[in-house]
Amino acid sequence: MKTTAGKTTRPARPPQRGWQFGIAYRQSASLAPPAARRPQPPLSAGEGPHPLADAAQSAALRQRAQQIESAFGRIEPLLADLATRQFEPRFADQAAGQVRDALGLDLPASAFRADWAAPLDARRLHAQCVTGTFCRLIGQESDAGPVNAGDGESAPELIRRWGFHAVDITPCADGRLSGVIDYILRVPQAVVAFRKSYAGALFDVEESVRHWETIELRRWRDRVPNAASETTRYLKIGVYHYSSIDPAHEGCAAHGSDDRRAAEAVLERLTQFAAGVYQTHSAGAAASILLVGVDTDTDAIRVHVPRADGSIAVERYVDNLSLYRQTLGDTREGAKQRIRAAVAGCADVGDDDAGTAGMRWFCGYLLKNNIGQIDAVVSWHGGSYADRGHTERLIVVGDAVDDVQLRNLAFQAQMETVEEGAADLDVGMRILRGLQEPRSLAIPVLVHERYDARIPGARERARTRALRLQAAIEARYRNLPPGLLFVQAIVRDSARGRPEPVALESAP
Amino acid sequence: MKTTAGKTTRPARPPQRGWQFGIAYRQSASLAPPAARRPQPPLSAGEGPHPLADAAQSAALRQRAQQIESAFGRIEPLLADLATRQFEPRFADQAAGQVRDALGLDLPASAFRADWAAPLDARRLHAQCVTGTFCRLIGQESDAGPVNAGDGESAPELIRRWGFHAVDITPCADGRLSGVIDYILRVPQAVVAFRKSYAGALFDVEESVRHWETIELRRWRDRVPNAASETTRYLKIGVYHYSSIDPAHEGCAAHGSDDRRAAEAVLERLTQFAAGVYQTHSAGAAASILLVGVDTDTDAIRVHVPRADGSIAVERYVDNLSLYRQTLGDTREGAKQRIRAAVAGCADVGDDDAGTAGMRWFCGYLLKNNIGQIDAVVSWHGGSYADRGHTERLIVVGDAVDDVQLRNLAFQAQMETVEEGAADLDVGMRILRGLQEPRSLAIPVLVHERYDARIPGARERARTRALRLQAAIEARYRNLPPGLLFVQAIVRDSARGRPEPVALESAP
Repeated sequence: MKTTAGKTTRPARPPQRGWQFGIAYRQSASLAPPAARRPQPPLSAGEGPHPLADAAQSAALRQRAQQIESAFGRIEPLLADLATRQFEPRFADQAAGQVRDALGLDLPASAFRADWAAPLDARRLHAQCVTGTFCRLIGQESDAGPVNAGDGESAPELIRRWGFHAVDITPCADGRLSGVIDYILRVPQAVVAFRKSYAGALFDVEESVRHWETIELRRWRDRVPNAASETTRYLKIGVYHYSSIDPAHEGCAAHGSDDRRAAEAVLERLTQFAAGVYQTHSAGAAASILLVGVDTDTDAIRVHVPRADGSIAVERYVDNLSLYRQTLGDTREGAKQRIRAAVAGCADVGDDDAGTAGMRWFCGYLLKNNIGQIDAVVSWHGGSYADRGHTERLIVVGDAVDDVQLRNLAFQAQMETVEEGAADLDVGMRILRGLQEPRSLAIPVLVHERYDARIPGARERARTRALRLQAAIEARYRNLPPGLLFVQAIVRDSARGRPEPVALESAP
Repeated sequence: MKTTAGKTTRPARPPQRGWQFGIAYRQSASLAPPAARRPQPPLSAGEGPHPLADAAQSAALRQRAQQIESAFGRIEPLLADLATRQFEPRFADQAAGQVRDALGLDLPASAFRADWAAPLDARRLHAQCVTGTFCRLIGQESDAGPVNAGDGESAPELIRRWGFHAVDITPCADGRLSGVIDYILRVPQAVVAFRKSYAGALFDVEESVRHWETIELRRWRDRVPNAASETTRYLKIGVYHYSSIDPAHEGCAAHGSDDRRAAEAVLERLTQFAAGVYQTHSAGAAASILLVGVDTDTDAIRVHVPRADGSIAVERYVDNLSLYRQTLGDTREGAKQRIRAAVAGCADVGDDDAGTAGMRWFCGYLLKNNIGQIDAVVSWHGGSYADRGHTERLIVVGDAVDDVQLRNLAFQAQMETVEEGAADLDVGMRILRGLQEPRSLAIPVLVHERYDARIPGARERARTRALRLQAAIEARYRNLPPGLLFVQAIVRDSARGRPEPVALESAP
C-alpha cells in the first residue's frame, strides 16, 4: 500500500473546496507519501499572538509546566554533587537532609550509606527520585484545583448543554501525548470520565462498552451527571498522532509512523465501540465518537468532524495548524466564525443544521482551545518543539495518572497484567532504554493501582495487584543488564487520594 | 488458631436447640477438630426414597449424567484398540472413520498416520478426544432444552416473585462442584446471571460489583428481567465445600481442608461485595448474599440462612443431611413444614416474619431441591460417592462453561490471564497431573473465551485472548515432561453458541 517517496515529487496540490476553512481533504491520500501530503511550512516564533489565545490560561499552564520541569530538573545536579561527597564523614544523614530540602522526598539515611567498597547506588537513587518526584507532584495536584477550571458557566455544564454528559478519551501511550487533556485539548479533568492510554490508542472495545454502562447506570439511578431522560450522549474520543516535520520517523511507532494507518486503526475501534453500544442495548442506546489527530511537533490537532449521519472519514478533517494561521489576523469574532464555518464544511452541513449542532459546537470548542496551545508553542518554543522525539522521564503502568500532565513526562500504558499489556510495555521499555542506558541511568517504572475505598478490602486487593504487576514486569525484563530497571509500586484511593507506596517486603 | 486433634477426644455433643430442625450450631467450633464436629453416620442405600424427591427430575438428570459418562467412557477402549492396529494397512483412514462413528469427532486422517519409527501419539489423541468430546457435548446442550426447566410457573418468575431478580453463584473451582447448579442446587440455568469459579470460591469483589451494575442497568433501561422500580434484589451465593466422611483430607485444598476457614473466607468476600454495592451506589442499592456449603461426599448442602438483619454466621446453618434423614418418614407437606421451621429457626424469626419471607422461601427452595439430589445419591451411589476425591477429566480455563455439568467432570478456573489466575491454575494442574501422569495420559486443558457477536470485531478479539491464554499456560508449564500438557483453545458466541476451535496456525 505504501508507495515510494520518489513517486510524487512536487507537493500535493492544495485541495479546492474547504481549504480556506482549514479543511484538508486528501484526494488520493493512499498514493501520496506522507512527506508530500502536508506542504505547510512550519510555524515560527513571530507568528502569535492569536486573537483567540487565552493569555491567562496559557500563563497558568506554563507555570505548572515549569514547576514540573524544575522539580525533575533538580534531581540530577543534586545527585551529581552528592556522589562526589559520598565518602565524607556523616554523609548519609546530610544527604538525606539535602534530598528532603531540595526535592521534598523522604529517603532514609541508610539509602545514602557508602564506603569505598560499596559506593552509592546513584543509578537507583536517581530512579527513586524520579518516581518519588512524580508521586510528590501527584500529591500536590490532589490539593491544588484543576488547571482548566473554565469561567462563568462551568465547562462540564456547557459541554452537557451541547449534548454530551461524559467524555472518554483514549490517546496513544506515547509520552508526547502526556499533556493531551490539560494542554493540547484543554478540557477540564472534571468532564473526563475515563482516560486510558494504549500503544497506538488501540483500546479494549468491550471494556469501553462497560464504561458506557457504568455512566449510564448513574444517570438512571442517581441523575448524575444528568437524568437518563435527557438525550445527551457519551462521547468517546480516540487520539492518534503524527509528526508534521518528520512524518516518516517521528509518528506513532505502533503504526509504523504512518498517520493514515494510525487514524484508520483508531477509527475502526471507535466504530466498533459505537456499534457495540447500540447493538448490545436496546433502543435509544447511542454513543458519539470523534477522531482527533495530534501533531506532536506543534501540538496542533486535526478534528475529523462527523457528517450528519455520524460517519467519520480519515481523509476528512479540519486542520487546526492551517486554521490557526488563517485566523491570525482576524478579530476574535471573525476567527470564531471561521472555525464554525470550517467545522460545518467538514461536516458537510450548513452552519445552522440542528442535527449536528452539538457535535459541531464541541469540535469548535476543541479547535478554539487548541489554538491557545498552538499559540503557546509558538511563543515558548518558536513554533515547534526542539525535542521532536521522546524524552519521557518514566513509564507509568497499571491505572492512568492524569493529575500531572506534561508533554514527554511519562509513557503511560494502561494494563491489568503484563500478559495482556506486554506489547505496549515493550514499546515503552524500548523508548526509555534508548534514553536512559547511554546516560548510565535506570529506567524508572511506576506501577499504579487505584482502589475504591468505599469497597471493603479494596486497598489490600489493589496492593496485591500492584505487587503482582511489579513482579511480572521484573520477570519479563530479568535479562536486562543489572540495575537498568527500577520498579516502584503505589496504590491510590480513586477519589484523588495521595499515592501510597507499596513495599515488596510488606507483601501478604 | 488451629488446635490439635487430640484435644477433644469425644464427639461434640449435639447442640440443644434446633437440632430437631436440622440446624447445627457449633458452640465452640474453633476448638473442636473438624473430624469431631459432625457425628453423623453416613447415609446408606436403603434410606430413600424421600417424600420430596422428584423422581422424574432425578431420572432426567441421571440420564444426562449417563450420556456424559458414556461419551467419555468410549474414548479409552477405542484408542486402546486403535493403538494395537496402528501398523495395519490403510489404518489412518479407518481410524479417523471409527473415531467419527464412535465419538462423533472429526479428526483428520493425518492425526492417525503411524509407522514403526513414528508411532501413534496416543497420549495426544486421548487429550484431543477428551476436549473434543467436552466441546461436542457443549454443542449438543445448546440444542437441547435446559435440564431443570421447572413446571407450572417458571422458576425465574417464582424466584422473582419471592424477591430476587438475578442469581450470581461463585463455587469453588474444585471439580466435585462441577454439577453444583444442575444437580446439587437444581436451579434453572435461566435464573443464573453469572457463575464463575475460583479456587476456594475467592471471587473478585470489584468485578462482582460490576456484574451488579450490568444487571441493574438492564432493569432501568429495558425492564429486564423486571423494572428497577420493583424492590427485588440481586442475590450472590458463595459456595464452599467440605467432606463429611474425610473432613481433614478431602475438603477444600485452597483452605487446607478446613471447612470453617473455607466458610469464613467466602463469607468475608460476600460481605465485602454487599457493602461495596451499598457504598458505591446511592440509596436503595442493595444486594443479598447467601453462604452455602456442599458436602462433596453426599452432595448435601448447608444453608447459612441470614438473620432478619441480613447477618450470616459460619456456625449457624441448616444441615440438609440431617434434615433429609429427619424428614424421610414425613408426608410431603410435613417435610416441607419441617424445612420451613428449620429455616425460620436458623434465621431466628417466626415463620410468619414478613421481612425475611423471600430469603426464607429461597433457602427452603434450595433445601427442597437438594433433598432430591441427596436422595439420588442414596439410590445411585448407596448414600455417598465411591470416589471421594478428584477424578476430573479436564481443566477449563477462561470463561465459565455451564452447559455440561457433572460432578468431577472439570476443574474450572475463571481467569483472563495466567498472571492473575496462576495460583488457581496450579491447583488444577496439580490435581490433574496426579490423575493423568501415573496412567501415561496427558493433562487436557480447554481454554474457553466467550464473545458477544453483536459487538463488531468481538470474535477476533476473543480468538486473540484465547491464543494469548494458551501461550501463557504453555509457557508456565514448559518444564513439564514432554507431552504431559495438551491445550486446546476455543471461542464461543455468548448466546449459547457452538464451540469454535482456534488453531494456533491461523493466529493473526
